Amino acid sequence: MITLQQCEQWDQADELAAFKAKFDLPPNTIYLDGNSLGAMPRHAMERAQEVISQEWRTDLINSWNKAGWWTLPVRLGDQMSPLIGAGPGETIVSDSTSINLFKVLAAAVNLQKERHPEKKVILAERDSFPTDLYIIEGFNAFFGKDYRLELFDDPADLQTAVNENTAVVVLSHVNYRTGYLHDMQATNRLVHEHNGLLIWDLCHSVGALPIELNSSDSDFAIGCTYKYLNAGPGAPALLWVNPKLMNQISQPLSGWWGHKHPFAMSPSYEAAPGIERFLCGTQPIVSLSLVACGVDVFLQTDLQAVRRKSLALTDLFITLVEQECAEFGLRLVTPRDHHFRGSHVSFAHEQGYAAIQALIARGVIGDYREPEVMRFGVTPLYLSFVDIWQAVQHIKAVFANREWDKPAYKTRSKVT
Amino acid sequence: MITLQQCEQWDQADELAAFKAKFDLPPNTIYLDGNSLGAMPRHAMERAQEVISQEWRTDLINSWNKAGWWTLPVRLGDQMSPLIGAGPGETIVSDSTSINLFKVLAAAVNLQKERHPEKKVILAERDSFPTDLYIIEGFNAFFGKDYRLELFDDPADLQTAVNENTAVVVLSHVNYRTGYLHDMQATNRLVHEHNGLLIWDLCHSVGALPIELNSSDSDFAIGCTYKYLNAGPGAPALLWVNPKLMNQISQPLSGWWGHKHPFAMSPSYEAAPGIERFLCGTQPIVSLSLVACGVDVFLQTDLQAVRRKSLALTDLFITLVEQECAEFGLRLVTPRDHHFRGSHVSFAHEQGYAAIQALIARGVIGDYREPEVMRFGVTPLYLSFVDIWQAVQHIKAVFANREWDKPAYKTRSKVT
Repeated sequence: MITLQQCEQWDQADELAAFKAKFDLPPNTIYLDGNSLGAMPRHAMERAQEVISQEWRTDLINSWNKAGWWTLPVRLGDQMSPLIGAGPGETIVSDSTSINLFKVLAAAVNLQKERHPEKKVILAERDSFPTDLYIIEGFNAFFGKDYRLELFDDPADLQTAVNENTAVVVLSHVNYRTGYLHDMQATNRLVHEHNGLLIWDLCHSVGALPIELNSSDSDFAIGCTYKYLNAGPGAPALLWVNPKLMNQISQPLSGWWGHKHPFAMSPSYEAAPGIERFLCGTQPIVSLSLVACGVDVFLQTDLQAVRRKSLALTDLFITLVEQECAEFGLRLVTPRDHHFRGSHVSFAHEQGYAAIQALIARGVIGDYREPEVMRFGVTPLYLSFVDIWQAVQHIKAVFANREWDKPAYKTRSKVT
Repeated sequence: MITLQQCEQWDQADELAAFKAKFDLPPNTIYLDGNSLGAMPRHAMERAQEVISQEWRTDLINSWNKAGWWTLPVRLGDQMSPLIGAGPGETIVSDSTSINLFKVLAAAVNLQKERHPEKKVILAERDSFPTDLYIIEGFNAFFGKDYRLELFDDPADLQTAVNENTAVVVLSHVNYRTGYLHDMQATNRLVHEHNGLLIWDLCHSVGALPIELNSSDSDFAIGCTYKYLNAGPGAPALLWVNPKLMNQISQPLSGWWGHKHPFAMSPSYEAAPGIERFLCGTQPIVSLSLVACGVDVFLQTDLQAVRRKSLALTDLFITLVEQECAEFGLRLVTPRDHHFRGSHVSFAHEQGYAAIQALIARGVIGDYREPEVMRFGVTPLYLSFVDIWQAVQHIKAVFANREWDKPAYKTRSKVT
C-alpha cells in the first residue's frame, strides 16, 4: 500500500523539486495537461514585455538586426539542440508542426524518388495524431498521386509493416493517446534496413525524455514546443534534419527566409546551404521569442533526472489508480514497460469524457481523447508525488460519487 | 513653394490627427517604415499581458474554449473584413503570407487543372516581392512540373502578358519597391476574360487604402498584418477566398485545423465547409491575439479618409523632395498618378543605401531595397504633414552635407 506519507517522503527526496518554483502555476489546480499546453515559465511575461515594449515599440525595424529577430529560428534551434541530441545548425523553430511535417515529407519523398523510385508507400500508424495523417493525405492528393498512405494498427505491427515498398515512415515518438514510446534507435535501424526514410514526430516526447536524434541515426524530426517545452500557446514548432542529408534535399515551401541571399531580392530561388532552407516566411516574433523561456528551464536540468522522475510519477499514477480505484473499471491504455512508456498515462472508461469534466470542476486538469480515453500528462518539472496522490484521490471521488453523471458533463461542446 | 507653416495648417485641419495618440511611437523618431513593420498600438501591451497572464498562465487549456483561441483565425478574419471588402466567413488570419500563397496557389492551379487543363502558365511580375516568386518556383519544382512561371517586366505589360495560356496570375496589389498600385477591378476583368484566376498579394495595400475584394470580383487574396495593420512583428497573415469558389477548391496543407470535425480525431481528412479549410496547424496565439489591436484602430477610421490623407502626404513628400532636393539627383520611382500609387514613396539614388543609414542616424527611419531604392512608407494614422516636412529637411541635409559618405554607412551588414 502506497500512502500519502510515502509520497511526501518522495517529494522531500526529489532532486527536481526546486524547478516547480520556475513556473507560474494557477492556484488550486493539479495540472495534468502539460502535454497539451505547458505551464508558463515565470520569466515569460518579462520577456514578452521586453519584446513588445523595447524590440517592437522602441526599436521597430532595427530589431531585425539589433534583437536578432532574423536569426531567431536558428538560434532557438541551437538552444534546444541538447534536448534532442542535435548538433549546431541542424534545427530550426518555425511555423507549425503540421507545416514542418509537410516540408520534411516533401523533402523525404523527393529524395526517395531519386534513390528508390520504385518505393511508393508512405507508412504511418493509424493512431497517429490525425494532423500527421491529414498532411500525408494532402501531400499525396496534390503531389504524390502515385504514392499511397498505408496505416498499421498496433506498434507491434511496425516490424512487418515496413517492407521493400516503404519509401517514408511518419511516426510519433510517443503516441498522443496511449503514451506508447517507440524505440528510436531500433526503429531507425528497421526502416533503414529497408532503405526507407523516417520522420519522427516528437510532439509528445521532446522535453519529456532524453532524445538522441544524431546518435540514433535519425533522418528527420518535427515537433511542438508548446507542450512539455512550455513555450506558450501555439508557439512555433521545431524541425530537425540529419546533417548528412541536408545538401541532398529541398522542400517546396521555399519562401524568402530559406533563400541563400534573402536581401539580394533576386527573382530566383537559391536554397540556403544549411537548415535555413527549411525556413519559409516571416515568423511571429512575440510567440517565437517566448520559446526561449521554456527551453531555458530545461537547460538547467539533467534530462536523465527528468526521465527518472517521469517514470516514477507515471508508475505511481498507475499503481495508485489500481490501488484506490480498482472497482471503477478504468482500463490502463499506457504501456507498463518503461521502455515503451512516454510521460503521460491514459485510462479508458466509457464515462471518460464526463469524468474528465468532473475532474476539471475539482481543479484536476486532464483531458479527453476519443474514444473513451482519459489522458493525464505528467510533467516532472512542476508536478510532485503528492500532486499525483491527490489527483488519484479526486479520480476516486469522481467515480465513487458518480460525479460524472451530470448532463452538463456529457455534452461534448468543448474543443479540447 | 510649400512652407513649414503650410504643413502646420494642414495638420490643424487633419481629420485623422487624433489617431496618432492611439500609437505608442518611439521618441525623436520620424517613422517612415510602417510599410515594413507597423508601429505599436497603445493597447497592445495590455492585450499581451491579458493573453499571457490570464489566458495562458491561469486558464491554460481552458482558453481554447473560454478565450476562443480555436476560433481566433476566423474571428480576426471577420474583424478585418471591412478593410478588404469581404463578407463574413471569407477570411482567416493564420500562418505566414508565403505559406498562405502556397495554399491558394495550389488551390487555384488545381481548379484550373479541372477547368482549363491546357493552361500551363503562372504569370507574375518580375519585380514582385521575391518570396511570391520563390513560392511559385517551389510549387512548380515539386508539384507543377508541367507548369511554368512567366515574368513580365513592367506593369504596363500586364495587358499583353495575360493570354490563353495563363492559368493563374500572382500580383502584388501595391508593389513593395516602387509603390505602383494595380487597378483591382480592371485587372480582375482582364484575367477573367482570359479564363485565368488571380491571386492578390495585399501586403503593401491592406490598411493603406480601401480594398474591395468582393465587388471587384477577386478570386483569392493573401497579405501581411504586420505592416499597415500594425499587428506586431511577424504576426500571422490574412487569406481570403471568393465565396463562390470556396466549395470547388481544396489545398494541400490540410492540417487538423482545417478539418470538418477536428476533435473527432478521424484518421481521414474531410475539409471544413468554409474558409476554415485553409487553416492548417495550431497558431501562435500570443502573436495572433495582437492582430486585433491594430485592426481595432482601423475600424474607427473612414478608409476613404485614410486614402485621402495618404495621397496628400505622398503628394507632399514628392513635391517637397523636388522643391528642396532638386540638385541631388534623387529619381522618383513611385507613380505620380494617384490611380497607380500606393502609400509609400521611393526614390532611386546611387548612394541610396548609405543615405538611408545616414537618415536612420538622424532618427528618420526609412529603408532600402535593391537596387538603389530609398523607400519611405507613409502611414496616415500616425504621420503628420509636419513629419513629412521634417523628413525631407533631413534628406536635404544628408545629401547637402554628404552625410552618406561614411564607410560605416556603406557596409551592407544589415538584414533589412
